[in-house]
Amino acid sequence: MDIRIAILGCGYWGPNLIRNFYEQEFTKVVCVCDVAQERLLPVRKRYPDIEVSCDPMAVLRRADIDAVVIATPIFTHFALAKAALENQKHILVEKPLAPSVEEAKQLVDLAAKYKRTLMVDHTFVYTGAVMKIHQLISEGSLGDIYYYDSVRANLGLLQRDVNVVWDLATHDLSIIDYIFSKSPVAVSATAGSHVGKTEEVAYITVFFEDNRIAHLHVNWLSPVKIRKTLIGGSLKMLVYDDVEPSEKIRVYDKGVDMVREEHERSLRVSYRSGDIWTPKLKEHEALSEVANEFLSAILEARPALTDGISGLRVVKLLEAAARSIKMRGQEIKI
Amino acid sequence: MDIRIAILGCGYWGPNLIRNFYEQEFTKVVCVCDVAQERLLPVRKRYPDIEVSCDPMAVLRRADIDAVVIATPIFTHFALAKAALENQKHILVEKPLAPSVEEAKQLVDLAAKYKRTLMVDHTFVYTGAVMKIHQLISEGSLGDIYYYDSVRANLGLLQRDVNVVWDLATHDLSIIDYIFSKSPVAVSATAGSHVGKTEEVAYITVFFEDNRIAHLHVNWLSPVKIRKTLIGGSLKMLVYDDVEPSEKIRVYDKGVDMVREEHERSLRVSYRSGDIWTPKLKEHEALSEVANEFLSAILEARPALTDGISGLRVVKLLEAAARSIKMRGQEIKI
Amino acid sequence: MDIRIAILGCGYWGPNLIRNFYEQEFTKVVCVCDVAQERLLPVRKRYPDIEVSCDPMAVLRRADIDAVVIATPIFTHFALAKAALENQKHILVEKPLAPSVEEAKQLVDLAAKYKRTLMVDHTFVYTGAVMKIHQLISEGSLGDIYYYDSVRANLGLLQRDVNVVWDLATHDLSIIDYIFSKSPVAVSATAGSHVGKTEEVAYITVFFEDNRIAHLHVNWLSPVKIRKTLIGGSLKMLVYDDVEPSEKIRVYDKGVDMVREEHERSLRVSYRSGDIWTPKLKEHEALSEVANEFLSAILEARPALTDGISGLRVVKLLEAAARSIKMRGQEIKI
Amino acid sequence: MDIRIAILGCGYWGPNLIRNFYEQEFTKVVCVCDVAQERLLPVRKRYPDIEVSCDPMAVLRRADIDAVVIATPIFTHFALAKAALENQKHILVEKPLAPSVEEAKQLVDLAAKYKRTLMVDHTFVYTGAVMKIHQLISEGSLGDIYYYDSVRANLGLLQRDVNVVWDLATHDLSIIDYIFSKSPVAVSATAGSHVGKTEEVAYITVFFEDNRIAHLHVNWLSPVKIRKTLIGGSLKMLVYDDVEPSEKIRVYDKGVDMVREEHERSLRVSYRSGDIWTPKLKEHEALSEVANEFLSAILEARPALTDGISGLRVVKLLEAAARSIKMRGQEIKI
Repeated sequence: MDIRIAILGCGYWGPNLIRNFYEQEFTKVVCVCDVAQERLLPVRKRYPDIEVSCDPMAVLRRADIDAVVIATPIFTHFALAKAALENQKHILVEKPLAPSVEEAKQLVDLAAKYKRTLMVDHTFVYTGAVMKIHQLISEGSLGDIYYYDSVRANLGLLQRDVNVVWDLATHDLSIIDYIFSKSPVAVSATAGSHVGKTEEVAYITVFFEDNRIAHLHVNWLSPVKIRKTLIGGSLKMLVYDDVEPSEKIRVYDKGVDMVREEHERSLRVSYRSGDIWTPKLKEHEALSEVANEFLSAILEARPALTDGISGLRVVKLLEAAARSIKMRGQEIKI
Repeated sequence: MDIRIAILGCGYWGPNLIRNFYEQEFTKVVCVCDVAQERLLPVRKRYPDIEVSCDPMAVLRRADIDAVVIATPIFTHFALAKAALENQKHILVEKPLAPSVEEAKQLVDLAAKYKRTLMVDHTFVYTGAVMKIHQLISEGSLGDIYYYDSVRANLGLLQRDVNVVWDLATHDLSIIDYIFSKSPVAVSATAGSHVGKTEEVAYITVFFEDNRIAHLHVNWLSPVKIRKTLIGGSLKMLVYDDVEPSEKIRVYDKGVDMVREEHERSLRVSYRSGDIWTPKLKEHEALSEVANEFLSAILEARPALTDGISGLRVVKLLEAAARSIKMRGQEIKI
Repeated sequence: MDIRIAILGCGYWGPNLIRNFYEQEFTKVVCVCDVAQERLLPVRKRYPDIEVSCDPMAVLRRADIDAVVIATPIFTHFALAKAALENQKHILVEKPLAPSVEEAKQLVDLAAKYKRTLMVDHTFVYTGAVMKIHQLISEGSLGDIYYYDSVRANLGLLQRDVNVVWDLATHDLSIIDYIFSKSPVAVSATAGSHVGKTEEVAYITVFFEDNRIAHLHVNWLSPVKIRKTLIGGSLKMLVYDDVEPSEKIRVYDKGVDMVREEHERSLRVSYRSGDIWTPKLKEHEALSEVANEFLSAILEARPALTDGISGLRVVKLLEAAARSIKMRGQEIKI
Repeated sequence: MDIRIAILGCGYWGPNLIRNFYEQEFTKVVCVCDVAQERLLPVRKRYPDIEVSCDPMAVLRRADIDAVVIATPIFTHFALAKAALENQKHILVEKPLAPSVEEAKQLVDLAAKYKRTLMVDHTFVYTGAVMKIHQLISEGSLGDIYYYDSVRANLGLLQRDVNVVWDLATHDLSIIDYIFSKSPVAVSATAGSHVGKTEEVAYITVFFEDNRIAHLHVNWLSPVKIRKTLIGGSLKMLVYDDVEPSEKIRVYDKGVDMVREEHERSLRVSYRSGDIWTPKLKEHEALSEVANEFLSAILEARPALTDGISGLRVVKLLEAAARSIKMRGQEIKI
C-alpha cells in the first residue's frame, strides 16, 4: 500500500519536493498546500491528480495522510511540525529544523513520543560529492582531519525573516555533522549587516573536541558565486568546488610532515606533493535520495540518516553562532 | 651624490632587495651582510663589486653608509633597527615592522628623534593591482565599502619563529591600512595548529569605526594556492585574484539595494547586475617601487607611503589578533 | 485568431520546441507527431490538451493547421518540408535545412512559389551572446575582422546518419552567416573517423571575399566540453566562451598595428593592451526568440531572420566541407 | 677535461642558453658571439669570465672550441651550422634546424661525414609534461591514438623573416615527432595574413600512416594566451594545458566504444566516464635537460634524442605546410 503524502509550502523549494515525491514508487502525493492561492495554480495545471488546499491545519488532520513534508518559512516550522506529529504524521522538515534549540528539542521529543519518523531535509548530505567525501574520511584516506574551510557566497537572495547564517550556514553545518565523527565544543562567529536589517555576511569558526576546526564564510553580497570547500588532512587534502559542473572533487596527495632524520636534533618540516585525483561521482538528484530516505525510514521504522537529532545538533550550532555574532566573536560553548 | 646602502639579511627576500636596489639610479649598494657565510657566496659571485660581511653591528657603525635595509628574521628587527637609527641611518624594514607594539612604537619614536626615514616594506601596497584598488575606492567608484574578504592560502612555508598570522596576514593588513581611510576598532580571531607548534590556519575579523568589516583567511596547509580578495561596495563590487597572471582585478557593476516604490509600504530588495570591467594594470615589479619610494622619501625628507606609523598600525592589529586567538575569538579593542 | 501549430518529431529537441511554442501568445499547439509511439506518451501526460499522432503526412494534410515545425532526423527534412509547403503550411525546420544543396534549393523555391514562411532553427543566432557579437561587429567596435576561430568539442553524441560536421559545424556556420556581412568564397576541410563509420573530429577553414578566414574545430571525441570562439579584429578582440554560465563574452582592447614613426624607414610592429570588458547579456531562452521570430514572420509576411536562404547558404558550406574532407583539404569554391 | 662551448646569438633565447650551459658540469662556456655589440654588454657584465666576439666565423675557426650552440635567426642557421661542422664542431641548433628541407638534409649529411653531434633544440621534448605524455603513450595507457589537437595562441611576437608556422608550429611538430611512433604521410594547411606580410594565423592538419590525425592552430593575433593540447585515445584521453602553473596534464578515463550486446544486430555506441588523474610531473628547467643531452651525446658519441634527423623530419612538415597554405589546403604528400 502506498505511503500517502501531503506537502506544505509551495514557494522556492516546494515544487522540487512535489516533483521528486511524485516520481517515487509506492508513494502517492495526495495533497499540496499553500496559504497563497496563486502558488497552487501551476501545481493544479501540472499535476491535475493532486488535490490543493490553502488550509494546512485541515490537511494535517486528515486521516488519509501518512506523512507530511514541511517546506514553509522557518518561523512556521515548529507549529506545523508539532501539529503534524500530534496528528501521528511522519514528517520531513526543510532545513533548518526550527528557529531555536528549545523548539527543535520539543520536536525531537514529540517524534519519540508518537513513534513517528522525524527527518530534516539536509539536502547536501545526499549529493554524490558529499557522499564521496564522507567515504574518503570514513575509510581514513585523508588521515587525521585538520580543518574544514567553506566559502558559500553569491548575490542574494536576501531574506526578511532569517539572516545569512540560518539560510546558508545550515548547509555546511549539516555537511560537517554528517562527515565528521567528532563533536563540536564551541563556536565563535562575526558578521556584518549592510543593506538590510539582518546580517548578509558572516564568518563562523567551529571548534571540535579534537584539534580540528571548521570555518564557514557565508555571504549574500558577493559579486561572484563561490561554493568552495577545502579539507586538510594529515595524509591527503581535498578541494570540493560545487560550482564545477562535473569535476567537483579533487583529492591532492599533498601534505606537510614534521620529520626527524638521523643525527638531527630538531624536527624538520617536510612537504609532500604528488598526484591529484578527481573521483567520478554518483550522478543523481540529491532530493530524490532525500525522498527515498524519508520513505525508507518510515517503512523500516528506523531513524533517517538526517533525523531530528542531527537537525537539533545543527540548530544548536546555528543558535550558538547567532549568540557569538552579537558578542563580536566571543566563544560560545556547545 | 649617491645614497649608499647596506642590506642586512640574505635569505628568501634579501636577493630580491639587492637586485632592485642595485638597479636604482643615484644609489650604491655598498655592502651585504648575513651571519651565514654560505648565503654570501652567491652574492659575491653575482655582484663582485659589493662588499660582504658577517657582522651586522660593524656594518651599522660604518660612517660611509647612509641607509640600511633590514631583511632578517622578525625577532631580530628591533635590535637591528634600533642600532641602525642610533647610528643615524635611514632604514627600510621588512614586514612586519617588529614583533610587538611596544617595540614598533620605540622604533617610530627613535626615527622621529634622529630625524631619519623609517619605512616598512609593505610590498603589496606598491603593486599595480592594489594601487588600482586604492584609486577606485578613493574616487568613490565602489561607493560605501561593506566588506573586504581575503583568502591567502598555500602549502607552506611553515616557519619556526612566527605563525601564519604574522607571516601572511601582514600582507592584507597593510593593504587594508592603505586602501581604507576608516580606522579599525576591534579584532576577533581564531586559529588552528596541527603540524607544528605555531598556528598554520587562522581567521581574523577586523571591525571598523563605520559598519564595514574585513576578514582574512590565512593558511599554510592548503593544497592549492589561493590569493583571492572580494570587496563589496554599495555601488560596485570587486574581485582581486592575485594568482591570475594578468587579469587580476574585475570590477562588477552588481549590487543590492533596498528600494521603496510608489504606494509600497515596506522596502523591497532590488538586485543590479551589469557589465564587468577588467582594468589594465600598471606592470612593474612592486619591489622596484618600494626601493624608489624609500630613496625618494630620504631625498625629499618626507614620510614614506608605508612609513613607521603605518607599520605600527599593522603591528597593533597583528598583536590584537594574536591575543584574540588565545581567547578563541574574543573581541580585542584597538 | 491564433496561429495553429503542429510539431513533427519528438526526440531530443522536440520537447523544447513544444514547451516554447506552448508558451507563446496568439498560438495554439494543436498536434504533436512522432512515428515512435513511446515518445508521445510523456507529451500526452504533460500536455493533455495537445493531440498526438503517428502519421506525419496525415497531419500535414489537415486544413486546421497553419504552420509546421519539423524536428525530425535530417534525412527526413526534405520530404516533410516539401509536403508541408505543398499543403500551404508555413514551416520552421531544424538545422540544417536539408542534407544537400539541391534539396535546400527546392525548398526555398517551393516556399517562394506558395508564398509561405520558410525558417530554419539556427538557435544560436537568437542567443544573447551572439546577438551582442553581431551588434559589436555591425557598429564597428571590433574594426576589420581578421578571423573567427571556434572550438566546439565534447564527448558524443555520435550519430549514425550524419557526421560531426553536419551536427556541430552547422551552429558555427549559421553564426558566421549572421554576424558577417562578407560572403564565403571557398572551403578547405579535413577530418578523422575513429570509432564509428562517420567522421567524429573535423576541421574546416572558410575563406571570405575579403582577407578574413573562419576556422571551426568540431569534435565528438573530446574528454572535456569546449565551446570557445575567438574573434580577432583590427580594433578589438573578443572571446566568446559558451561554457561560462554568465560571463560568456569578453572584449579585449588589444591589438597589433604596423606603425611608421618619424624618420623610420620600415614599419614597426606595435602592440596595444588595454582594459577588458564583459558586457551584460540579454538573458532569455534562445528558443523562445526562435518561436517568436517564426510567428512574427508569418504574421508580418516578411522573411525570418534565419530564413530558407540563410539555411541554404549554410548547407552550401556544409556540402563543400564534406567534399573537401573527401579530398583531404582541397579547396572547394562556393 | 671540460667540453669547451661557444654560443652564437644573444637575442631572445641566447641568454637562457648561456645560463644553462654555464651551470653544467664538465663544461666551459668559452665565448659568446653576436653581430650586435649592444647585446654583448650584459653578457660581459653578468659573466666577466666569458669572452665575447662579434665575428662568428672567427669563433668557428678557433681550435680551442669543441662545440657550438647556434641561436641566431633561422635564415642564418644553414651557413653557420655548415661552417661549424666543417670546422669539426659538435653543434646544437635552435629550432627549426633550417629554413628548407634541402639545407636540413645537407647538415645531416655533413654531421655524418665529419662524425659530429648534430642536435636540434626542440625544447618542449625535454619538459616534464611532454616526457610524461611520451611515457603514457609508449606504455599504452591511452590505447590507440585517435588525434592530437593543439592550440598555441597569443598576442605576438610577430616576426619579419618567418611566419607563425615556422615560429610556433615547430614546437608541436617536434612534440608529435617525439611522442608518436607512426610516420606522417601528408599535410593540409590554411592560413591568414592580416597585419604584416607573413601569415599570423595558421591551421595545419597532419595525416599519419594509420588513421590518426594531428591538428595545430598557431596564432599570433589572439587576445589570450592559449597552450592547450587534447589527445584522444581509445582507452583514455588527455588534456595538456601548458598555461597551468603546475597541474599541466589531466588524464581522463573517458571514451567511446562501439559494442555489440547479445541478441543485438547492430553496433551500439557506449560512453565511458570515470576518474580523472593529474600526475605529478618532473620539475626542472627543460633547457637544462637540453644542455645535458647535448653534452652527453657528445661524450657518449651517440645520437641525441632530438638529433639532426628528427630536426629534418620537422622541417619536412614545415615546408609541406608552407606549400599547402599557398594552395589553400591542398594535400601535400610527405
